[in-house]
Amino acid sequence: MTSRLRVTVWGENVHERENPIVREIYPDGMHATIAEGIAEQGDFDVRTATLHDAEHGLTEETLENTDVLLWWGHAAHGKVSDKVVERVLTRVWQGMGFIALHSSHYSKPFMRLMGTSCSVTWREAGEKERLWVCNPAHPISSGIDRYFEIENTEMYGEPFAIPTPDEIVFISWFEGGDVFRSGCTWKRGNGKIFYFRPGHEVYPIYYHPTVRLVLRNAVRWAAPDPEKWIDACPQIPADKAPEPLTIKGPRIHKEGEAGFR
Amino acid sequence: MTSRLRVTVWGENVHERENPIVREIYPDGMHATIAEGIAEQGDFDVRTATLHDAEHGLTEETLENTDVLLWWGHAAHGKVSDKVVERVLTRVWQGMGFIALHSSHYSKPFMRLMGTSCSVTWREAGEKERLWVCNPAHPISSGIDRYFEIENTEMYGEPFAIPTPDEIVFISWFEGGDVFRSGCTWKRGNGKIFYFRPGHEVYPIYYHPTVRLVLRNAVRWAAPDPEKWIDACPQIPADKAPEPLTIKGPRIHKEGEAGFR
Amino acid sequence: MTSRLRVTVWGENVHERENPIVREIYPDGMHATIAEGIAEQGDFDVRTATLHDAEHGLTEETLENTDVLLWWGHAAHGKVSDKVVERVLTRVWQGMGFIALHSSHYSKPFMRLMGTSCSVTWREAGEKERLWVCNPAHPISSGIDRYFEIENTEMYGEPFAIPTPDEIVFISWFEGGDVFRSGCTWKRGNGKIFYFRPGHEVYPIYYHPTVRLVLRNAVRWAAPDPEKWIDACPQIPADKAPEPLTIKGPRIHKEGEAGFR
Amino acid sequence: MTSRLRVTVWGENVHERENPIVREIYPDGMHATIAEGIAEQGDFDVRTATLHDAEHGLTEETLENTDVLLWWGHAAHGKVSDKVVERVLTRVWQGMGFIALHSSHYSKPFMRLMGTSCSVTWREAGEKERLWVCNPAHPISSGIDRYFEIENTEMYGEPFAIPTPDEIVFISWFEGGDVFRSGCTWKRGNGKIFYFRPGHEVYPIYYHPTVRLVLRNAVRWAAPDPEKWIDACPQIPADKAPEPLTIKGPRIHKEGEAGFR
Repeated sequence: MTSRLRVTVWGENVHERENPIVREIYPDGMHATIAEGIAEQGDFDVRTATLHDAEHGLTEETLENTDVLLWWGHAAHGKVSDKVVERVLTRVWQGMGFIALHSSHYSKPFMRLMGTSCSVTWREAGEKERLWVCNPAHPISSGIDRYFEIENTEMYGEPFAIPTPDEIVFISWFEGGDVFRSGCTWKRGNGKIFYFRPGHEVYPIYYHPTVRLVLRNAVRWAAPDPEKWIDACPQIPADKAPEPLTIKGPRIHKEGEAGFR
Repeated sequence: MTSRLRVTVWGENVHERENPIVREIYPDGMHATIAEGIAEQGDFDVRTATLHDAEHGLTEETLENTDVLLWWGHAAHGKVSDKVVERVLTRVWQGMGFIALHSSHYSKPFMRLMGTSCSVTWREAGEKERLWVCNPAHPISSGIDRYFEIENTEMYGEPFAIPTPDEIVFISWFEGGDVFRSGCTWKRGNGKIFYFRPGHEVYPIYYHPTVRLVLRNAVRWAAPDPEKWIDACPQIPADKAPEPLTIKGPRIHKEGEAGFR
Repeated sequence: MTSRLRVTVWGENVHERENPIVREIYPDGMHATIAEGIAEQGDFDVRTATLHDAEHGLTEETLENTDVLLWWGHAAHGKVSDKVVERVLTRVWQGMGFIALHSSHYSKPFMRLMGTSCSVTWREAGEKERLWVCNPAHPISSGIDRYFEIENTEMYGEPFAIPTPDEIVFISWFEGGDVFRSGCTWKRGNGKIFYFRPGHEVYPIYYHPTVRLVLRNAVRWAAPDPEKWIDACPQIPADKAPEPLTIKGPRIHKEGEAGFR
Repeated sequence: MTSRLRVTVWGENVHERENPIVREIYPDGMHATIAEGIAEQGDFDVRTATLHDAEHGLTEETLENTDVLLWWGHAAHGKVSDKVVERVLTRVWQGMGFIALHSSHYSKPFMRLMGTSCSVTWREAGEKERLWVCNPAHPISSGIDRYFEIENTEMYGEPFAIPTPDEIVFISWFEGGDVFRSGCTWKRGNGKIFYFRPGHEVYPIYYHPTVRLVLRNAVRWAAPDPEKWIDACPQIPADKAPEPLTIKGPRIHKEGEAGFR
């Protein structure tokens, strides 16, 4: 880990190209605005990547040099290559941080990390959202008082079909009467994962100063530990067992054979 | 849920056909012996299915009528159809119990439910394993004293790359000096999941009376709750919001539109 | 475990004696109304106990014959005897269900089971509360649609200073703009624990049919497993070790000595 | 938080005064050796405190200036003042790290943080222990290969009556045939908690270089987040609610009143 965190913001970049409302708000793409919000304070080296780049911009080399990956997708989840998804998972298990934004609850990497359907209920009415802090001393909510508000947003409501989070940082109250677990953490392998709800494409949510603060906090929180967990499934030969062993009975596997998968 | 639990034992049935040692121990296939061990006591309706059956024997109808699915695979994980895997996941999220046996730590459905690499270390030396009970009152360890032993088995050792289990029921001690979290529970959606380590193919482990007792206990523990969680991602129209709402700002989604995935 | 669940409802019974508003709503005490709500459907044997009974009505014998204990306290948490609290904890660890109601977030047994400060924010304005179901197939929310409402209630808001729940069954939306994790589960020892928020003393909340439904569902969910986890800290003499051992080095403890505590 | 971590090692200091075997190994007390092992590398300011000091050496001021507290107790758990225990809990909830060593599984602060009986099984035979790393990239196991060994130690065995840990860092294998969850993490409030098993008083375990490495790693891991979670149970007056509210129905609490406890 370098002292400057290396951040990659992945954006699907579909709505921005196809929908003039979205393009007007995010003329350079949502990924660019998210990246700008992270880079504006602190020691971050931020790059972006999109669906349309070769290998979606997530080559082995890029991921190897990424400490924290943020992911925004919505209309084209199904177009993301499974090979790239496997690559992302491998890096998360090694320790790379992963931050799933808004509609990325249905993205392939998030669903694969969760192992659940990740469904929500939703309503698009430009209503008010108030995000309550559930742990006022958590690094991800640092600098926020008891809550913060987003004036106009899409609603996501419970049930949110996720495994029990390790910690809930934010729960949302919606003007229309719903609630949602809007900021949740998990660990998979040695990778820290954060889901953050705000971010609908037709509102300028990634310009909101508190949303940007949360993104920066979350990137710092999700930074990798100094060591990597390199996945392996080693056969330990009988003569290398910590305790002396006499081999008994039949065997199928040869010494030095790789694990089945 | 009927009063008799409907159990499906899925077996890969590859070693039994290809390896004479395994065939001698399990002449009708490991799945048959596992099924027999469950059916021998208690109110279970047990059927079997294998890789070689049409749709691997796991049709929509079979899964719809399965309360608890047990899974044994090893040499052919990669040959299991992704479509069938998705079907299994859907049923688990609805509430079907899922019990992964031994080398099924690397099976597609288990890996998909965990979201981790599920790796282990291993050694095939026919050594002794002692499984310690970590909660003496847990339904899965019911009827077992402080521990039970398997005289000859393959070793699996830590690190076991799984998400933190909800509960650890068994931890194994191995003659060669290793340890392993051998009985672990999780919940995904409304489905209860149990991983149980014993079961290597070249030893007659599924004839072991305590292993069979654990399987029966685990099936009862993993039985579905009375209601199913049917996955949905409903749009809640603004005029159906629990609190009166005035629609503000632009919208992208039409009323009644399905969620992206 | 008998086939009829044996339920004890513990009520502090202070407000009902001192405050005419509360007495008018709950002339026989809140505990009596809670007990009535549980007994009105299903196979429950329900008794009540209060602060003013000898040993608060929670003798060894009563607890020994209780499958699930419900607890309502508010004004007199500090008057509950530590000896009785220890007795309750011991039974929970053995497997007795424990359901903490409303202001019992600050009761001694709940705080001792949680190990946290259990603080909330609060407001008494008779506002509306809407409880959202987070897992529509959970046994505790069985029979409830997407949410239910309580017309007038005290508000409890986040942060709720609890350890991460095993599962969140309900999250509340409040008219005044707050949210709260209103239905949460944990396991301590082999005992199942449920916290349920509704129940302020100046509103007739324990007459609410859905609140009563949740109480009955929760009692069934919290029912003990067939076996008890009897706490022990046994010394295993060296000659009773599963593997043969030669004693090495100095020893402080005598054979057969009890563990320090 | 200063850049140098402020560490307090609390030792009961009873065996060292009463038992010549222990005094010979730890002539200045176990707390002194533990403190020395932490201070020998890295930026730590380490002080010690014992049962016999005024307020057990854990005054408000000392705890206020402690980032991580380590605790070793055994023979005199019952002599620790409840007032000091409450003080420790309060600081843990604010964010102070807490590391419970060996027989401190039965110490008052650890038991209060866990909410369980914390029992183990045990045997004093000077047998060998091998601690396996369950997450090779975890900061607490940093610098350790697959396992490390302690040649002579007391045995602790499962069941260990704890709430499910957030993460298991070490599981022990014992020569006599037992296993134990020897390195476990939890969070209570904003405080990080680590239990570490090694440390019996009649063996020179706190001179073991890997045990010392784990202690230093654990202190760094348990360091407080920059912000403190100051516990409060504030009444939010109706006219300060985020959404406009009309007060309805009767009220018991006066504006500005403190929460009951």
